[in-house]
Order: sequence, then C-alpha cells, then structure tokens
Amino acid sequence: MSARSQGGRRPVGRRPGDPSQTRATILAAARRQFAERGYERATIRAIAARADVDPALVLHHFGSKQRLFAAAHELPVDPGDLFARIADLPPPERGAAIVRSYLSIVSSPSSPALSLLRAAATHEDAARMLREFVGAAFLVHAPRLAPGPDGARRLALAGAHMVGIVFGRFIVEIEPLASATTDELVELVGPVVQHYLDGAALGTSS
Amino acid sequence: MSARSQGGRRPVGRRPGDPSQTRATILAAARRQFAERGYERATIRAIAARADVDPALVLHHFGSKQRLFAAAHELPVDPGDLFARIADLPPPERGAAIVRSYLSIVSSPSSPALSLLRAAATHEDAARMLREFVGAAFLVHAPRLAPGPDGARRLALAGAHMVGIVFGRFIVEIEPLASATTDELVELVGPVVQHYLDGAALGTSS
Repeated sequence: MSARSQGGRRPVGRRPGDPSQTRATILAAARRQFAERGYERATIRAIAARADVDPALVLHHFGSKQRLFAAAHELPVDPGDLFARIADLPPPERGAAIVRSYLSIVSSPSSPALSLLRAAATHEDAARMLREFVGAAFLVHAPRLAPGPDGARRLALAGAHMVGIVFGRFIVEIEPLASATTDELVELVGPVVQHYLDGAALGTSS
Repeated sequence: MSARSQGGRRPVGRRPGDPSQTRATILAAARRQFAERGYERATIRAIAARADVDPALVLHHFGSKQRLFAAAHELPVDPGDLFARIADLPPPERGAAIVRSYLSIVSSPSSPALSLLRAAATHEDAARMLREFVGAAFLVHAPRLAPGPDGARRLALAGAHMVGIVFGRFIVEIEPLASATTDELVELVGPVVQHYLDGAALGTSS
C-alpha cells in the first residue's frame, strides 16, 4: 500500500480523492485484521489505523463492524441485517424466507460466502473468524427468530442445515442436490427450517 | 514401496509374510488410486496391480470396492453397510438411528471422515471422490430408506443436514452446537431426518 500518509493526527475524512479507493483500502485492512485477530478481537479503531483513516470514516462507510465484515468478505448482505428483516415477517413465512435468502447469498460455486466455508475447513484462523461472526448473530437473533427453550441451538441447526446444503450443492456437487432448483429446495427445506424456528413437535408418518 | 515383487504372474495370496502388512499395502494403493481416478473409475484390478497382489486377495481382505474405500479412508463403517442396517429397522426408528450413527462416525475433530470433508472443500479431486462415493450410496439406498417421489433428494438433504452439523460442530466449532451432546442432537435432529425419510407434510405452529 503506497497510500500510507506521512505526518500525525488527521481530521475525519482527511484522505483526499476517490472515495472508492478509500473504501477499498479500508476493506483490505479489514480483511487482514479479521484474518489475524478473529472477528471478536478485531476493532474498528485498529482497522482504521491500518488503513490510515479516522475510525469515524470507517463507520461512515460501513455502519458497523458486522457490516464491515460482510463487505470485506463480499457477502451481498450482512447476516445480521438479513435476520432482522426476516424477523419482521409473519412467523410462518420465516422458514421459507431463510432458505430462499441463504440460497440467494450462496448461489453458485464462486459465491464469496463459499470461500469463507472453504477457508474455515482448512484454516483454524478462518474457522475462528466464522465462529465468532456467525455465533454472535445466532445469539442476538435467536430470541426473536427461534423463541423458547433451545432457541439458539435450533437456530444454529437451521444454519448448519443450510451450510450442509450449499456444501453438498456447490462444493461436493452431489446429485440430486446440485441440480435442484431454488424453488424445489424452498419447498422441501422451508418447512424443516420453520420447524426449527417453531420448536414444535414434528408429526411422522408412522 | 520396497515391497514390489520381482517376476511375473502370481497366484492368489502369493505375497508372503504378515497379512497386516499386505492390508496396509493394499490400503495405501487404494488411497492413491481413489485420489487419482475418483471413486467410479478406480478398479479393484488397478488397485491390486498397484499393490502388486492378486485382485482376489483384495476382495478377500475387503469384500467390495465400497468397503475398501471406507477402510482406506479409516471410516469406522462402510456407509452402504450402515444404510442397509438402518433399512432393517422399523421405519419410525430410522431417523434417530441415522443421526446417532453419523455422530458416532464423526465424533471428534480428528475423525477421519472430517478429513474427507476438509479435502473436498479445497480439492476438486477429493470432492469428486466423495461425490461419486456418497452419490452412489444415496441412489442405491433411497428406494428403501426414503421411498416415494424425490426420495433420493430427501435422503441427500438428510445427509447434507448431518454434514452441516458436523461442519458446525467440529470444524467451525460454533456454539451452541459444539457443546451439544449426542442425545440432545438425536432428540432435536432425529425427527427432522425422519421427516425427510417419510416425505410427510410437516405441521408448523402457525
């Protein structure tokens, strides 16, 4: 990075020129900081220092550490924002909405969210980063999305189910998952995710 | 390998000495062959040639290509044998049995089955090997385990769910999945796997 400034304290937004260059510099600093420190211990302040900008400028561009993480890893949406939107839906619609949203985030073998999964599979640092990021989202959103006993665990199981599906669909590319359409998966999996959210008893055919 | 024999055709069981050494030689040859050719195109004959033993000796030791694959990758059981045992249970017991069996196969971060998942996440050859091996098992066992329309897809979804759970539990080590006991997971997930096997409608709380 040749962008490191000379001199000492800087006012907010001091970095001149192209805002998209500033964004890119912040994102690169964030990726390195999250990779090295994990999600929990990474701070907006340290990322800003690394990018040689004021912390307020980072917040101006990205709003929160969570959104900065999502942007740094090219996730099309911050899962926290997504959970919040889904929690605003009528409860019976949430299962299908989770499946559809997840499949839109991980919609091809080159989806950036898959890079996070691949990295987590082989690098403990990446696994820790994902664990801290997603674990925080489960804890925050479980009370609304999956109320009742075991809610965070049920929400985590729903998430694990979606991870397994995209792992099978786009990494192992196993049939007959790989060729299933989004609508087919929403129809088959939506009720299961809904079940995890509701915590209701499942009827079986026996 | 210094074990390569000199000379031409050999009778069955010709390799002298320690049977466990013979087994190890066959397993090493199998691992290399599966990795290079995938599961479908690997043959007992080629693996035997690579180990410098007669194909009948490979079958004597391992019984089938499927079991040889399982042994070569240190899986404690061939999934085909496992599916067959589960299909012998009364239908309403199968969901819980699948969850419990899977969690006994992948019971710690060092379980060999996780090595296959990690490898598949980053190496297309390993992904193909897993795809062919597991895909074959889904197709063979779906008619008994998950009869009816979409049976193979429902069985694959149940399998993907289990993969997602062990991915979350032992690779990402995310809470509150990592600390869940086997019994807790059987109770929460067994009915969901059962639902996929049955293909029945799920009641929701709405």
